[in-house]
Amino acid sequence: MTTAQRDVDAALRLDRLERAHRASAATVRRTPLLTSASFSERCGGAVALKAECLQRTGSFKLRGALAKLRTIGRRAPGVVAGSAGNHAQSLAYAARHHGLSCEVFMPLDAAVSKLEAVRAFGATVHQHGASVDECVALARERAQAAGLVFVHPFDDVEVVAGQAGVGIELAQEVERLGQVIVPVGGGGLASGVALAVKQARPDVRVIGVQARACAPVARSRHPRATPPLSTRTIADGIAIKRPGELTLPLLERWLDDVVTVDDEQIAEAMILLLERSKLLVEGAGAVALAALLTGAAAPVSSHTTVAILSGGNVDVGLLASIAAHQETRAGRRSRLFTRVDDQPGGLAGLLAAVAAARANVIAVEHVRDGVSRAVRETGIELIVETRGSAHQEQLLAALHEAGYEVELAG
Amino acid sequence: MTTAQRDVDAALRLDRLERAHRASAATVRRTPLLTSASFSERCGGAVALKAECLQRTGSFKLRGALAKLRTIGRRAPGVVAGSAGNHAQSLAYAARHHGLSCEVFMPLDAAVSKLEAVRAFGATVHQHGASVDECVALARERAQAAGLVFVHPFDDVEVVAGQAGVGIELAQEVERLGQVIVPVGGGGLASGVALAVKQARPDVRVIGVQARACAPVARSRHPRATPPLSTRTIADGIAIKRPGELTLPLLERWLDDVVTVDDEQIAEAMILLLERSKLLVEGAGAVALAALLTGAAAPVSSHTTVAILSGGNVDVGLLASIAAHQETRAGRRSRLFTRVDDQPGGLAGLLAAVAAARANVIAVEHVRDGVSRAVRETGIELIVETRGSAHQEQLLAALHEAGYEVELAG
Repeated sequence: MTTAQRDVDAALRLDRLERAHRASAATVRRTPLLTSASFSERCGGAVALKAECLQRTGSFKLRGALAKLRTIGRRAPGVVAGSAGNHAQSLAYAARHHGLSCEVFMPLDAAVSKLEAVRAFGATVHQHGASVDECVALARERAQAAGLVFVHPFDDVEVVAGQAGVGIELAQEVERLGQVIVPVGGGGLASGVALAVKQARPDVRVIGVQARACAPVARSRHPRATPPLSTRTIADGIAIKRPGELTLPLLERWLDDVVTVDDEQIAEAMILLLERSKLLVEGAGAVALAALLTGAAAPVSSHTTVAILSGGNVDVGLLASIAAHQETRAGRRSRLFTRVDDQPGGLAGLLAAVAAARANVIAVEHVRDGVSRAVRETGIELIVETRGSAHQEQLLAALHEAGYEVELAG
Repeated sequence: MTTAQRDVDAALRLDRLERAHRASAATVRRTPLLTSASFSERCGGAVALKAECLQRTGSFKLRGALAKLRTIGRRAPGVVAGSAGNHAQSLAYAARHHGLSCEVFMPLDAAVSKLEAVRAFGATVHQHGASVDECVALARERAQAAGLVFVHPFDDVEVVAGQAGVGIELAQEVERLGQVIVPVGGGGLASGVALAVKQARPDVRVIGVQARACAPVARSRHPRATPPLSTRTIADGIAIKRPGELTLPLLERWLDDVVTVDDEQIAEAMILLLERSKLLVEGAGAVALAALLTGAAAPVSSHTTVAILSGGNVDVGLLASIAAHQETRAGRRSRLFTRVDDQPGGLAGLLAAVAAARANVIAVEHVRDGVSRAVRETGIELIVETRGSAHQEQLLAALHEAGYEVELAG
């Protein structure tokens, strides 16, 4: 073991993590742990949710940012980072709390809500660069040129110590804790949580979860089961191709396993969290529950498994499109094609039949080109809302009964 | 004061409410109180949210149902109710907890998610009746015929005592409590909370909020300011035309004022709660915050105002459409009409110009009929996603620059 490794180990000893957690008590919210009968039933074992999406600024990143800035001290000229979202908001919040100036480089297409949130905390936003990587490079240059402190989102021992607070709370609060499921992106949260939990309760399993599209850590453990790396996933918060030089060895040492879930599974977990738990959780924040729901991770019998919901910063526009997609999958929204007489009353008759089946019409479209139809007929495309697959079938049967030939799209 | 009134007063004395609250401690979740810097800033005073949407079954109604069934005892043959949602779920949950059989009459067009939730708690669902009123009547008949106990959703002293638990928790937990804002539908929650809070801390103000479309209590206080009653509002959980015979006098006696908010304001509060607080709150549950955001209720200086978020049971389909509507209002989604040459490359040129302005195309439609255009032209309707009003204007300017005449719809 090298001296550097020994220093890292010392800085991440349980008593140091606990001390960092106590120091943050006035600023960091102790997020609720919510037991869930419905998820426990679905997963076949006691499941509880650590609702870190309710953390101030909407994600766990605040813990690391506050811990890091506490070590910098007020004499520093200011801090700088490159980020598309959670790290930027957290750093801006932490800098304001510590009375430090803060600059953030954010990509050109960053979500408006995130830009606004960062500015609302008093930080200066430089909107440059097409990607997060470019923003990080610009932030490093700016730090060098202006003598600011560059703050890395995960590859920093103080940041890891801060994120460990989530694990400290679980170790303190959950009596029959058997297992913790945690998202893995850069590895700050996962290594911090694993360090805290396994030093305090060595018999508890800690399982990491990555988005299947971008799963470098899972890939190194299970090379055949995971595809080449891409950052196209709704779990954009953990779509990081290379964990840190500090965090990667920690993940390898402290995690019991790393599994993956795909975007459909993540979207379904997000919608279930809304429906059942009334929590808005971002894609990256929903992977732990998705792993339990799909069986990628299994609950441990007679003990509690905690899924960490790491953040809730998702654009409302994206949420609306995920919700519409899930409605379609659940048979609650469908696209029908049929033909009616191209004369007054033709469409009205069809719509009356739809209304009689108690389905709700969302959109109607006449389609005259590119479809097979008689001369005095027009094609009609309907988007209708039904109460699920059974109701959808009733609707199709009722329309057939009324004399319409109906095709159900996609 | 009549004997009946004296009995009600005795049953709702603070010590009785506190005892009921203690009796429920193992089943009812003590829901988190979340301070919010962002809402405090917007409202101009310290605002905290009582996240009762995180209650088991997704609403405060569980408290009343459990309190009521505790008094019935296990020898009862079973319970029955008529409800479209929250009361049905809560009663089913409470009946299972107390080992009682439960039947619920629900309307024909009840949301699938709510039907499923009630059945998941082991209740028998009778899907009859077009309206909630009809379901309530059917439930009363069924109670009579089968000797079951009919459970009213709000006009019952034990139910009111149960809902008071929300107020007990606020009185115990919030140090500088100055004011509580609470939704008013049937009046069970509002009267319970007011009774608990004002008996424990007589100087705290309690303000009720109704949906403007259905505001019988506000109307009796401010007859000119509120329209005739309708039940068409997104706050369907409190769209009740007549509060109870028990609850109405309690509301008149214990509430300091009753104000109203309209559907646009409620929808905006729902979206802000998602964006800022990561909480899914139903329309009825968002009216208290909406009242603060619009100034219908004002914070009290140097003390904390608590907005009660009473429930989170909203259909994901409805949520998606509210979110899309709010995106349009915020200039993040727009419908543009323009014309292009009706030949290969015509549409591609337009889309390239949109892409160069970094706007995201959601839908494209050719419109050839009913619009003014040259012979070799076609109308094009685009739905595009922008990052807010400023970006929307940049897009319009860029398209104009590229030679397109663009109209912005609605």
